[in-house]
Amino acid sequence: MPKNYLCDARALTKFCTDIFAGFGFGRADAEAIANQLVIADMRGMASHGVVRTDMYLTHARKGAIDPAAVPEIVRETPVTAVIDGHKAAGAVVSELAVKLAREKAEASGIAVVVARNSNHHGTCGYWGTKIAQDDMLAFVTSNTPPFLAAPVSKGPVIGNNPISVVVPANGRDMCLDISNGVMAFGKIHEYRRLNKPFPANAWLDREGNPTVDPFANEFLEFISLPVGMHKGFGLAVMAEAVTSMLSGGEVAAEIAPPGADLEENNPTCHCFVAIKLAGFLEPAAYRAKVDRFIDYLHEAAVQKEGDYVYYPGEIENIAYEQSLKQGVPLPENIKELLCKKAEEAGLSIPEGVFGKALDV
Amino acid sequence: MPKNYLCDARALTKFCTDIFAGFGFGRADAEAIANQLVIADMRGMASHGVVRTDMYLTHARKGAIDPAAVPEIVRETPVTAVIDGHKAAGAVVSELAVKLAREKAEASGIAVVVARNSNHHGTCGYWGTKIAQDDMLAFVTSNTPPFLAAPVSKGPVIGNNPISVVVPANGRDMCLDISNGVMAFGKIHEYRRLNKPFPANAWLDREGNPTVDPFANEFLEFISLPVGMHKGFGLAVMAEAVTSMLSGGEVAAEIAPPGADLEENNPTCHCFVAIKLAGFLEPAAYRAKVDRFIDYLHEAAVQKEGDYVYYPGEIENIAYEQSLKQGVPLPENIKELLCKKAEEAGLSIPEGVFGKALDV
Repeated sequence: MPKNYLCDARALTKFCTDIFAGFGFGRADAEAIANQLVIADMRGMASHGVVRTDMYLTHARKGAIDPAAVPEIVRETPVTAVIDGHKAAGAVVSELAVKLAREKAEASGIAVVVARNSNHHGTCGYWGTKIAQDDMLAFVTSNTPPFLAAPVSKGPVIGNNPISVVVPANGRDMCLDISNGVMAFGKIHEYRRLNKPFPANAWLDREGNPTVDPFANEFLEFISLPVGMHKGFGLAVMAEAVTSMLSGGEVAAEIAPPGADLEENNPTCHCFVAIKLAGFLEPAAYRAKVDRFIDYLHEAAVQKEGDYVYYPGEIENIAYEQSLKQGVPLPENIKELLCKKAEEAGLSIPEGVFGKALDV
Repeated sequence: MPKNYLCDARALTKFCTDIFAGFGFGRADAEAIANQLVIADMRGMASHGVVRTDMYLTHARKGAIDPAAVPEIVRETPVTAVIDGHKAAGAVVSELAVKLAREKAEASGIAVVVARNSNHHGTCGYWGTKIAQDDMLAFVTSNTPPFLAAPVSKGPVIGNNPISVVVPANGRDMCLDISNGVMAFGKIHEYRRLNKPFPANAWLDREGNPTVDPFANEFLEFISLPVGMHKGFGLAVMAEAVTSMLSGGEVAAEIAPPGADLEENNPTCHCFVAIKLAGFLEPAAYRAKVDRFIDYLHEAAVQKEGDYVYYPGEIENIAYEQSLKQGVPLPENIKELLCKKAEEAGLSIPEGVFGKALDV
């Protein structure tokens, strides 16, 4: 029976840091990546958690990520900066970008920092949360290779570009963190398991034709349709406008022309906006207003007894609190993956990382 | 047979200006409103065009809009401003806000201007376009009374808050301008006419239960579900976070508690963000990059011959060009509405406003 391990967050982060350091990343860079991954697991976003260790190490081995790269600030004003990531890991580029955004917004009230030639940096919300802790509103977006169709298009034309907005409240920040596809790839498994047709207008098959058949082709050959068609597509385009276009980076098909190997080259762009509340009103008054709004949502009438309206990010906040108390849940196969990578790096498995195992 | 008039844009704008001035608005304010309305018609967004003259004049008569109000800057830094609209028309407040945003971004690189106690200001894209003409990226959003349900809620909990992003290109700016409901209210008519059920997950009935019956209740009693459920809902919440919450204005149910008359009080909030391209790269290089991206979209393979992928705002840009050449299309009943209002204001109908009439 498969098991879930409940891990100590600090020990797990140190273990992941050791693994990345063992594969040639500098200690601080390895820690930035490990933090990003472990916190995604803590927030219940396992698809962006330590499972990505394998992908990142493959990218480093094949060239998309350069573990030795040092991101460079290529243009700067008191309220803006453009960073060339020089293929550093997304977390490494984003640590610098977030630091700059926070410093500039602290000094000037607002900042927009963009980065090109970066890599996958996990969830945008993770980076937004770092900005929001300074009593700032945060907006973070990234581009991705084209996975998303446009209305009427036959193939993917644009990234399933994630967008995050983080809003400070008292101890329970609101965090919107979405991409623009109708349905996450992970959900395909569920439809296959239940042998249930997709809802209409969610997927194209590999030929670019609409399909409701979850077995129409290989899992990763499906092409995602945008949520609300022109709405989700338009948001994805606008994410491109403030990431790749504004940073001078690569747009959509420029990232991944047909036949490109993303493990060898995956030049990702980001945009980080920090807006200091104090330029508008007292931060405490703002946070209190958000708190009242959250209470209002929680008190809203619902269709089924026992349900309630979640504020954006509430489910992830609950998971995070639970992970703090009970440990970070990690499935057995991910534990094995980490141990295998540690072994490859010549590390021994430290004690106290993988806690109590629970049947799932 | 109903007719469409093809109006001269300048004459129509002057006529609308005269009407608002005739009802007590200052000349410049009346012109700001008229411009906003006529350009919506020119862009093919008739639901936000001069048809709104009636609503605005009703709001002015009943108190929601104060034609004599002068918006006030209540807080200001080099990159931010908070405006109290004091119930002025949305266009009047937004003219000031856009002017401030452009000036501040020109001087400092970025600006965020928020406004409270404003009113309906038409399409957010109209205001964003004014910012984009200075080689700036524009982001504009507003709140509305709660028309939108949350996932699992029984009633409306938040505004169907519009969001616009405008991106400069060479003569064909990209303009995303969306709200967060699955389906616009106007579409209900179509389903009724065809006696066709709604798609699932588009509407709640007035009791707050999901319905696919377009005759379930009165037209305006339907409650809109958010596009992509938690995605559209989250975007609407975040629009609130940067409008009402940031400006110290009224949030969701505070605008319209049960039984409130929106014609008497409809305190609307806005947020305007201006980001000067020159802080990041040469504006000409940016515009060229957007142009290439638009060409790329136009060349994308499509499912049906003859179709092509529109960039955000392209349909509206085409309508605008057509209106410039052929005149602004205005249905007969809207012509009659304007003439009636002119009459009430003691104005005569000038010649040359309503051009050639076409059967529709």
